[in-house]
Amino acid sequence: MPRTAAVIIIGNEILSGKVKDENSHFLAVELRQLGVKLSLVAVIPDDVDEIASTVASCAKKYDYVFTSGGIGPTHDDVTMKGVAMAFGRRLVLNDRLKELIVKRCGVPSDVVMRMAEMPEGSELIELNGINFPPVRLENVFVFPGIPEFLKKKFAALKERFRDKPFLSSRIYINGEECLIADSLDSIARKFPSVEIGSYPKIAEKEYKVLVTLEAREEEALKQAVEELLKLLPREIVLRTI
Amino acid sequence: MPRTAAVIIIGNEILSGKVKDENSHFLAVELRQLGVKLSLVAVIPDDVDEIASTVASCAKKYDYVFTSGGIGPTHDDVTMKGVAMAFGRRLVLNDRLKELIVKRCGVPSDVVMRMAEMPEGSELIELNGINFPPVRLENVFVFPGIPEFLKKKFAALKERFRDKPFLSSRIYINGEECLIADSLDSIARKFPSVEIGSYPKIAEKEYKVLVTLEAREEEALKQAVEELLKLLPREIVLRTI
Repeated sequence: MPRTAAVIIIGNEILSGKVKDENSHFLAVELRQLGVKLSLVAVIPDDVDEIASTVASCAKKYDYVFTSGGIGPTHDDVTMKGVAMAFGRRLVLNDRLKELIVKRCGVPSDVVMRMAEMPEGSELIELNGINFPPVRLENVFVFPGIPEFLKKKFAALKERFRDKPFLSSRIYINGEECLIADSLDSIARKFPSVEIGSYPKIAEKEYKVLVTLEAREEEALKQAVEELLKLLPREIVLRTI
Repeated sequence: MPRTAAVIIIGNEILSGKVKDENSHFLAVELRQLGVKLSLVAVIPDDVDEIASTVASCAKKYDYVFTSGGIGPTHDDVTMKGVAMAFGRRLVLNDRLKELIVKRCGVPSDVVMRMAEMPEGSELIELNGINFPPVRLENVFVFPGIPEFLKKKFAALKERFRDKPFLSSRIYINGEECLIADSLDSIARKFPSVEIGSYPKIAEKEYKVLVTLEAREEEALKQAVEELLKLLPREIVLRTI
């Protein structure tokens, strides 16, 4: 079984439509390539209780939890507090973080000093070329919301998540989805380890439905594709890759 | 208090990174313009138990729930079943839906016929110019995953959600976020009905931080902006709109 992950996007600006979230799709693609199964994306407000309860339930249910957003110096940056609460920990001042903040902001006020606090027992993951290190508490990794920073930090530590890859095949269909539903249903039942998706494309000229088959076992994937091709009406199968 | 909403995006293809979700941002923008507060976006797999538990908890917690995806004819289209389970209802064949499906697909097989089933007690919302009507059960509105269809259907029924609008102001800051954090903190405490956001922009040349203030009461918003401008160092405030 693949390891599972949840991504928690923290930010009122996403929920109010002011900013379009890019981080969840970036992480979805990255995790897939690493062989990790993303099982939930939750976009939640900058609210410490919401953060605490979402992080707590995800940390129990999934192998990895990635948060994005809410770690700056302002009043709405409450992710660290929420993550600490999720595990019943206190926030404690981290000297290394304080040093990094003084370097950037000068001698900080009390409000800004909150940025130097981490949940007790968490790890500051120092990485080459990264100014502000991401923080880990148990299986929860805390990332910034700014996409450029999140991408750079994730790239620097992603190898620790790498696992057996997903393999995939695609079948392009030139016909309505209802013509293939029975065949997909029977193959999905016969090969439970193969994930089968069926995606109608209304803007495509060349084909009407894209069928995807994915598995971590090459043999199961190959057999499922072969048996599905036998069931599908030949005249609507454009190509298989 | 504004009415609240949750958007549930159902689809393995989003979680595996194959498809980039566009529907949640579209709905976030639309709901904001209608004066509805989007409080959660959840992206979940095509899994009937996950759908049932997410829909059930969201329907209790928020005024409106919008689902997207999982309503076609194939094995992975289990949204209707999940929504029915969330309310402890059965799926029942709907004659009007059956008629619409026969029109499109011819006389359907048993598998395809599942598309004509709706949760008992739900409403088929017939709208001008819409072939397949969206379904409502209690406060849950079931939409398709294909963005073109979702947009068209939402546009046709959105007026029923319209409420008092959100008003907003923006302040463009040419300085580090840590220089304004104390001021934002004090205004956020003084005006709890005003939502204040602070967004560092690393790719912008003209300014470094965008501060947004939003409220449904004009007077509170105006006062919060005025008092914030008095607190901020004048030399870093570029402009206010």
